[in-house]
Amino acid sequence: MKKVINAPENVVSEMLSGMEKAHGDIIRVVAEHNLVVRADAPVSGKVALVSGGGSGHEPTHGGYVGAGMLDAACAGSVFTSPTPDQMLEATKAVDGGAGVFYVVKNYTGDVLNFEMAGELAEAEGIQTDYVVVNDDVAVEDSTYTSGRRGIAGTIFVHKICGAAADDGKDLSGIKELAERVNANVRTMGMSLTSCIPPEAGEPIFEIADDEMEIGMGIHGEPGIERKKIEPANEIVDQLLGKILSDNVDFSGSEVAVMVNGLGGTPPMELYIAYSHVADVLEREGITVYGRPYVGDYMTSLEMAGFSVTLLKLDEEMKGYLTAPCKVAAGRPF
Amino acid sequence: MKKVINAPENVVSEMLSGMEKAHGDIIRVVAEHNLVVRADAPVSGKVALVSGGGSGHEPTHGGYVGAGMLDAACAGSVFTSPTPDQMLEATKAVDGGAGVFYVVKNYTGDVLNFEMAGELAEAEGIQTDYVVVNDDVAVEDSTYTSGRRGIAGTIFVHKICGAAADDGKDLSGIKELAERVNANVRTMGMSLTSCIPPEAGEPIFEIADDEMEIGMGIHGEPGIERKKIEPANEIVDQLLGKILSDNVDFSGSEVAVMVNGLGGTPPMELYIAYSHVADVLEREGITVYGRPYVGDYMTSLEMAGFSVTLLKLDEEMKGYLTAPCKVAAGRPF
Repeated sequence: MKKVINAPENVVSEMLSGMEKAHGDIIRVVAEHNLVVRADAPVSGKVALVSGGGSGHEPTHGGYVGAGMLDAACAGSVFTSPTPDQMLEATKAVDGGAGVFYVVKNYTGDVLNFEMAGELAEAEGIQTDYVVVNDDVAVEDSTYTSGRRGIAGTIFVHKICGAAADDGKDLSGIKELAERVNANVRTMGMSLTSCIPPEAGEPIFEIADDEMEIGMGIHGEPGIERKKIEPANEIVDQLLGKILSDNVDFSGSEVAVMVNGLGGTPPMELYIAYSHVADVLEREGITVYGRPYVGDYMTSLEMAGFSVTLLKLDEEMKGYLTAPCKVAAGRPF
Repeated sequence: MKKVINAPENVVSEMLSGMEKAHGDIIRVVAEHNLVVRADAPVSGKVALVSGGGSGHEPTHGGYVGAGMLDAACAGSVFTSPTPDQMLEATKAVDGGAGVFYVVKNYTGDVLNFEMAGELAEAEGIQTDYVVVNDDVAVEDSTYTSGRRGIAGTIFVHKICGAAADDGKDLSGIKELAERVNANVRTMGMSLTSCIPPEAGEPIFEIADDEMEIGMGIHGEPGIERKKIEPANEIVDQLLGKILSDNVDFSGSEVAVMVNGLGGTPPMELYIAYSHVADVLEREGITVYGRPYVGDYMTSLEMAGFSVTLLKLDEEMKGYLTAPCKVAAGRPF
C-alpha cells in the first residue's frame, strides 16, 4: 500500500489535525468528534449548514467549511458514515438560533444517521431540516444506496445554500433552495483505477490494465459498463449523453459545469476532458455560466477517473453560486 | 496506460485548449506556439514575467499566469523544454516596454533555451534578464541538470516577483528580488510511484510495491536513497532534516511553507504530512508566516509523492507573498 501515512487507524484524525494547523484562520477542529467547524461558529441568527460523510473524498467535506459555505463537516472513517452523535455535536457547535440544515449525500447510512441526529437535535430544542442529494444518473439503487447516489453535484448545494444562509435566508427557504438545486443537478463519473482504503489495505475492486468503468460510484460501487479504455472525447460523450437524456431539460439553459477529478487524475487530463465538454455544450446550445469548476472537488482517495456535473441555473442560484466564500479547498495563494 | 486522453501527441494542445475555455477571463492561449498569456497582456510599463518548461507539471506553469503572477508560460512537450522560438514569441506577446524577466528552473535545456531566447529578444530591442531557480537540496548534478534542480520553490519566485512587478518594481529590482528568493528557498521531495509520459507509454522508472525514493526529481531523476516505505512522520523528518541542515539558517525565522503533491497523492496524505511539518517547525523555533501552501502546485503527471519547501522570508517578500493575485491554479469558487 503506497501511502504517505503513519498508522492506518489514525489517518482521519491526523488529516484533520493537519487541516487545522494549515487553515486555523478559517476552521477549527473538534478532535474528539472528528468535526471541522467554521472558526467563528456559531454565527448568531444565521441558518447553519452541516454536511459530512465518510472520509477519503477530500476536500469534501471539511474543505468546504467557512464563510459562505458550510458551518461544519462531520468526518467519518474512510468510506464510512459519521455517527448520529458526531452529527449532533456538530449541530450544537454551529447552531446560531435560526436552525441547522443538513446536506446529506444519498447513502443509506448517511441518511439514517442524519435523520437520527435531527431528531436528537430537535429534542434539545434545535430546529433542523435536511436535503438528500441524489445527482448521480448512472444507476438506480446501488451497493450502499436506495435510489440514486449523491456525488459531486453536492458541492453546488453547499455553495449555493451556504451563500443563501449568509444572505439571511431562513430554514424553510434554504430547504426549498436545496431541493431546487438537487432537482436540477445531474452527475456521472467513470474510473480507470481502483483505490485502497488505508485500514483495509486492499483495492476496493479489481480492474484490468486496459479497462475502465463507466458510471462507477465514489466508493467503487458498480457502474453501468466495464469496457476497454476509450479516447477522452468518447468517454465525455457517454457521460454527457446520459446526463442530457435524463429528466432535466438543459436545452437553451445556462448551467454550472464541474469536471471533477477523483484524486489520481492530473490536471492535464481534466482539462482535456473539459475541452470536449465545452464543445458538446456549445453544440447543444447550452451556455456555461461564469466559469467551469475543473479540479478535485470530491475524490475517492487516489482513484483515477473523473465525473461531469451539470446544474441548470436560475437567477437566484447564479447569484449565490458566484458570491464570495472563504474555505480551505483550492486556496492557492 | 490509464489516462483520460485522446491521442498522446495532442495532450498539450488539448490541455491548453481546455484551460482557455475554462479560464478565458484570466488567460488566452496562443495555440500555434503552445503559450498561455495573461488575457490583458501586454501590460504597459510593467516588467513582464515569463516562465515555462516541460508539460506534465500542471498547474505549473500555465496555471500561474494572471494578474499578480506570470504574464506568460511556455508549455513544452511532456517533460521537455520549450524552444527558444516559443520563448521569444512569449516575450514579444507580453513585453510592455519595461523589460521581460524569465523564471527558469535549473534544467540544462530550459536554461540554454531561455538564454538563447533572451539574446533573440535583445536583438529585437526587448530588454530581458532571468533567474535560474535551483531549490532542490537532494542532489548536486542530475540527469538533466548541472548543479541543483529547480522544483516547487519556483512557485514562490512566481508569486513574489509577480506581485513586485505589479507593484512597479523595475527589471533590475525584480532580478535582485528573484535571486534573493532563490537564495532563501529550499525544497526536497520523495516519490512512492513512477508516472507514464503519454507519448512514451511506459513508466519513467521502476519501483517495487513496498519501496519509496527519497530525493526523487520531478522527471524521475534519481534521488538519494531507495528504501522500504516508512511512516509519514519519518519521511518528513528526512526531508526537513536535509533542508534545515543546508546552507540557509532558518532558525528563529519566519518562513513560507509548501507541502506539494506530485499529482497522485490525495489531500488526506498531504495534510498528514503537513501536520508533522508544522510540529517539527514549531519545535525548531521556526514560525510559519500566514498559512502554509498544501496542495498540488508542481506535479509529475500522476506520480504519488510530495515535496516540502521552506522559504526564509524578509519583510518585502512577506508583502508580495500575500498580495492578491488572480490565476487559474486552485481557483475553487
